[in-house]
Amino acid sequence: MTTYPPFGAGLWNFAAYVDRYATDGYDTPRSTLDQIRLAGEVGELSYVDINYPFTPGVTLDDVRAALAAEGLQCIGLTPDIYLRPHAKGAFTNPDPARRASARAIMDGAADAVRALGARYVKIWPGQDGFDYPFQAAYADLSRLAIEGMRDLAQAHPDLKFVIEYKPREPRTHMFWGSAAKTILGIQRMGVDNVGVLLDFGHALFGGESPAESAQLLIDHGLLWGMDVNDNFRGWDDDMMTGSLHWVETLEFFHTLRQNGWEGVWQLDQFPFREESVENAKLSIRFLKAVYRALDLLDESALAAAQANQDALAALRIVQNALFTAGLED
Amino acid sequence: MTTYPPFGAGLWNFAAYVDRYATDGYDTPRSTLDQIRLAGEVGELSYVDINYPFTPGVTLDDVRAALAAEGLQCIGLTPDIYLRPHAKGAFTNPDPARRASARAIMDGAADAVRALGARYVKIWPGQDGFDYPFQAAYADLSRLAIEGMRDLAQAHPDLKFVIEYKPREPRTHMFWGSAAKTILGIQRMGVDNVGVLLDFGHALFGGESPAESAQLLIDHGLLWGMDVNDNFRGWDDDMMTGSLHWVETLEFFHTLRQNGWEGVWQLDQFPFREESVENAKLSIRFLKAVYRALDLLDESALAAAQANQDALAALRIVQNALFTAGLED
Amino acid sequence: MTTYPPFGAGLWNFAAYVDRYATDGYDTPRSTLDQIRLAGEVGELSYVDINYPFTPGVTLDDVRAALAAEGLQCIGLTPDIYLRPHAKGAFTNPDPARRASARAIMDGAADAVRALGARYVKIWPGQDGFDYPFQAAYADLSRLAIEGMRDLAQAHPDLKFVIEYKPREPRTHMFWGSAAKTILGIQRMGVDNVGVLLDFGHALFGGESPAESAQLLIDHGLLWGMDVNDNFRGWDDDMMTGSLHWVETLEFFHTLRQNGWEGVWQLDQFPFREESVENAKLSIRFLKAVYRALDLLDESALAAAQANQDALAALRIVQNALFTAGLED
Amino acid sequence: MTTYPPFGAGLWNFAAYVDRYATDGYDTPRSTLDQIRLAGEVGELSYVDINYPFTPGVTLDDVRAALAAEGLQCIGLTPDIYLRPHAKGAFTNPDPARRASARAIMDGAADAVRALGARYVKIWPGQDGFDYPFQAAYADLSRLAIEGMRDLAQAHPDLKFVIEYKPREPRTHMFWGSAAKTILGIQRMGVDNVGVLLDFGHALFGGESPAESAQLLIDHGLLWGMDVNDNFRGWDDDMMTGSLHWVETLEFFHTLRQNGWEGVWQLDQFPFREESVENAKLSIRFLKAVYRALDLLDESALAAAQANQDALAALRIVQNALFTAGLED
Repeated sequence: MTTYPPFGAGLWNFAAYVDRYATDGYDTPRSTLDQIRLAGEVGELSYVDINYPFTPGVTLDDVRAALAAEGLQCIGLTPDIYLRPHAKGAFTNPDPARRASARAIMDGAADAVRALGARYVKIWPGQDGFDYPFQAAYADLSRLAIEGMRDLAQAHPDLKFVIEYKPREPRTHMFWGSAAKTILGIQRMGVDNVGVLLDFGHALFGGESPAESAQLLIDHGLLWGMDVNDNFRGWDDDMMTGSLHWVETLEFFHTLRQNGWEGVWQLDQFPFREESVENAKLSIRFLKAVYRALDLLDESALAAAQANQDALAALRIVQNALFTAGLED
Repeated sequence: MTTYPPFGAGLWNFAAYVDRYATDGYDTPRSTLDQIRLAGEVGELSYVDINYPFTPGVTLDDVRAALAAEGLQCIGLTPDIYLRPHAKGAFTNPDPARRASARAIMDGAADAVRALGARYVKIWPGQDGFDYPFQAAYADLSRLAIEGMRDLAQAHPDLKFVIEYKPREPRTHMFWGSAAKTILGIQRMGVDNVGVLLDFGHALFGGESPAESAQLLIDHGLLWGMDVNDNFRGWDDDMMTGSLHWVETLEFFHTLRQNGWEGVWQLDQFPFREESVENAKLSIRFLKAVYRALDLLDESALAAAQANQDALAALRIVQNALFTAGLED
Repeated sequence: MTTYPPFGAGLWNFAAYVDRYATDGYDTPRSTLDQIRLAGEVGELSYVDINYPFTPGVTLDDVRAALAAEGLQCIGLTPDIYLRPHAKGAFTNPDPARRASARAIMDGAADAVRALGARYVKIWPGQDGFDYPFQAAYADLSRLAIEGMRDLAQAHPDLKFVIEYKPREPRTHMFWGSAAKTILGIQRMGVDNVGVLLDFGHALFGGESPAESAQLLIDHGLLWGMDVNDNFRGWDDDMMTGSLHWVETLEFFHTLRQNGWEGVWQLDQFPFREESVENAKLSIRFLKAVYRALDLLDESALAAAQANQDALAALRIVQNALFTAGLED
Repeated sequence: MTTYPPFGAGLWNFAAYVDRYATDGYDTPRSTLDQIRLAGEVGELSYVDINYPFTPGVTLDDVRAALAAEGLQCIGLTPDIYLRPHAKGAFTNPDPARRASARAIMDGAADAVRALGARYVKIWPGQDGFDYPFQAAYADLSRLAIEGMRDLAQAHPDLKFVIEYKPREPRTHMFWGSAAKTILGIQRMGVDNVGVLLDFGHALFGGESPAESAQLLIDHGLLWGMDVNDNFRGWDDDMMTGSLHWVETLEFFHTLRQNGWEGVWQLDQFPFREESVENAKLSIRFLKAVYRALDLLDESALAAAQANQDALAALRIVQNALFTAGLED
């Protein structure tokens, strides 16, 4: 029987969502604890990434107990630095007071990481960037983004931080917008406790090959986390993995395996109109099939095909694996 | 002195917004009446398109009085058929009860159109469509969309309805997704009181030439309303007109003028992080410059250039107009 | 053993290509007869769609003999109305002499269709459209496109014509740019011998759901031909089917089956740097797997899922089929 | 009277083009000398970037004489490393013999740079990359690209080299695909004679803000050249500057001015169906208007707006400048 890698999910996979049209929300809001219970229901998850602060009234002890009850561990915390006070940026907000308030939230998340024994603080500075041409002075924007992140990392030398890049949304241009630009920024920080979390769909959305970006990050020693989902390439749709891009999903995990990358296979999906537990279950069923397909790949033939950049030979091998991977349930 | 066309705006130009990240909203919510007051502050608007139902506690009489106080007229009402109950569709919801509840809201909007002496009910069925491959049976989807719209139109033969198409968002695929597909659907309805509202940014987003789509709609007698904004072509950013695409905006209005289209020049913008009154003021300042540039276009030379499809000659003429249009204030 | 549908390919699948960079071509040019021999080598093809005129020196009798030798039939002819003389359009060229010369080529293709017993003349007016804003007067463009096509169809009432739409390339905007716009244009022609050939990749590129567009065309009685390939959604890459979009390819063929559409499964691919026979073989191997997956789909469960627009249930069924379809060779 | 910056153009602005459809070319091929004569006709150009090798029969002395006759200087040479022999790559070709033949062309270009007193060899490795998932081993691809470029630079320590990045075309994924990835690659080379040429349209196409990318390159000391054009953001259309994106073009040049960047304002446009001299003339007319608009920008007010990231204030200032820039002829 196959031994699978550990699976994880952002806890927001189990939240209710709102957008600019359904302003009343796609479902009744759920507390952090409700979300943990749903994550537990999936029955396949070992890790969750948790938004910080928790929903009102939920304490660290509550979270610790709920995780234990569901047999889950916290892999990281994601500070909410993209709400109204930071609508014009967290690190790159033009107002120093806003930068300070964002920093306070992140410091709180750092404490929670320690308290929960998690692996990292995940920084997703979605509001850092700009919307219009001429809105920002780019040299200043860059300086604020990099210095702010360096200060945070230096204030918590015992912890790891991962930046999750994305080309855009909610700003029309996010500062941390691509794998390469994020590596450049981290290099300029001159710290050793900041890495990258690669979101498969963000890479697709940005026109990257997710597998190539994974390799680039690994080459720079910076691929410290990842999550998957799917989209139509033109937006961060956060759809279910396995709904659209099978070959590229397989290729992404193949690159990780080739490099001996051993981490948690995480989900970052927004099932706006779908039942969230089934959404995660079906996702993991697909990921297990991908994992079995990796075992079935004729690696030496594939290496030979790639040495010649022979796309047809490579794809024949890939189809051989995917079409025979079968299903467990 | 130039006499400009009447200007208008969707009242949501003056609302506060939420999205899936800033779930606490980019500003404090504003009532319908607050929004009307802000629209009045712009000092350039003659018309507003109003969301229906109004915000809680606001009556038809309140709205009528507020409009009068600001010297505004209601051009149309936009029923809120994209909130939680209709997250899987209004006309195309698989649940007949949801279709009925959406219909009830639209009937209410129809009554309000009569009461306010507006021109049309504007239908924006943003949740009608699908997200995933294999999610919907397309023949059924199409039947529901077209029959539902026909039933609505036939129930209110004294009123006009306009459909605002958009390729996607909040669904990954909206049913009323392009100018041509909307014309086809309207033809199948066999009614004469349904037309189209063309949103400049939706056309851009869909890979259309907004001017060409305007012509297509006019050729079919269906361009009954329009609004403008701007975006980066890959999403419905609802940015300020004049921020990105000057030439295509001018071309759009030129097509309207050539066809003798005389309607309201409306704004449909979402100033998430901007001051909404200034956002509208600056937009109209730009539209006035566009209007003056239309007056400056050497129409006979342009017609000659277009008869040869001579892009360079045409663009020289266009630049002559835009670079000399000047500014009024 | 499974009985598969007939397979076909545009003969250009076996040509050598050029682009604006590799102006010396990606391979040595091949004659029409060379291309037919390569098509025969695939061993799986029953039909080819042939560019007209044939390469220099090749006669109708040569082609007839070569087809017979390879056991191939001609499904249609594609007139070359996108070369230098028609760089500014075939039907919509501003110069009447150019329109006439394009028409002469198409009349020649019509004769060849008769002579070869093919099913249709395939019209791909790739140069009909525009590049720049303000370049074309859209009402004129539309009139020329529609009247020209009507005249052609009326001149050959014994034949069928299919229009292959595409959003862009080589113009930045093609006139026949979407399924819906093409239907609208055909309706205005008022003839009954013009239909549509849907290219899977063109639909993807245009932001359409290929399956939904197939249904739309079938609903209008106009889906008269189709071909498949794959791309990254942002361009007409004409890559090998099965390289990227498995689920949407399956959905496309599922829609055809549901509607009892029985035609040739054709390839339209440009293997710039790949060996063309193996490219076609691997494509058909994938299409056979898709065909078997269609047989494995739990249709009643799928219908139930779609009646509720339950994406997760539908995708579980789809994965059940694709992961167990296996491979024949 | 305004003193403008020096203008330049890639010599291919004056060539005839071919693409995968108009395989007979959009015009009669032109020799290097013909192209130089057309560049001279523009009357506004000081520099040209010349493809190397020259067209058959044209010698270095011929070129030197033709340039002198037209009052032009050679700013750089662009080796043709994207023709048939290098269809699967120049630096990253899997075949060492192909890598060597590409290198030989580049060495030839280096000699020509010395002979013509040009500033740099411009490397546009358009075929370096991949088309399909699983086609390439990304670590190998990256190693070949970077080591090959380093070897070239080290072999010519007296010369400068600039890499022109682009996200894709003719490959579906180019290795040197973004500003940030190119900087990263150059850093790994460890040489000081390799920089970047930023093409405005390539940045747009890649979802970058051209101005932000310019700043990023300047921050790393690597913006050694640039050229402009325009496109619809979804492809490298190489259209005339000033046809679509006025505000972003102004912003790009504003960023250069703010940083004291003093170089040649170059054109990289492909007038497939347009008259090439007029195409360049109209482009430069637009660039002069942009230059005058830069002089009109209220820089202190703009700096204040940007310090607050106040998009509306910034855009008001920008419109003030552009609408009053006027035209010289």
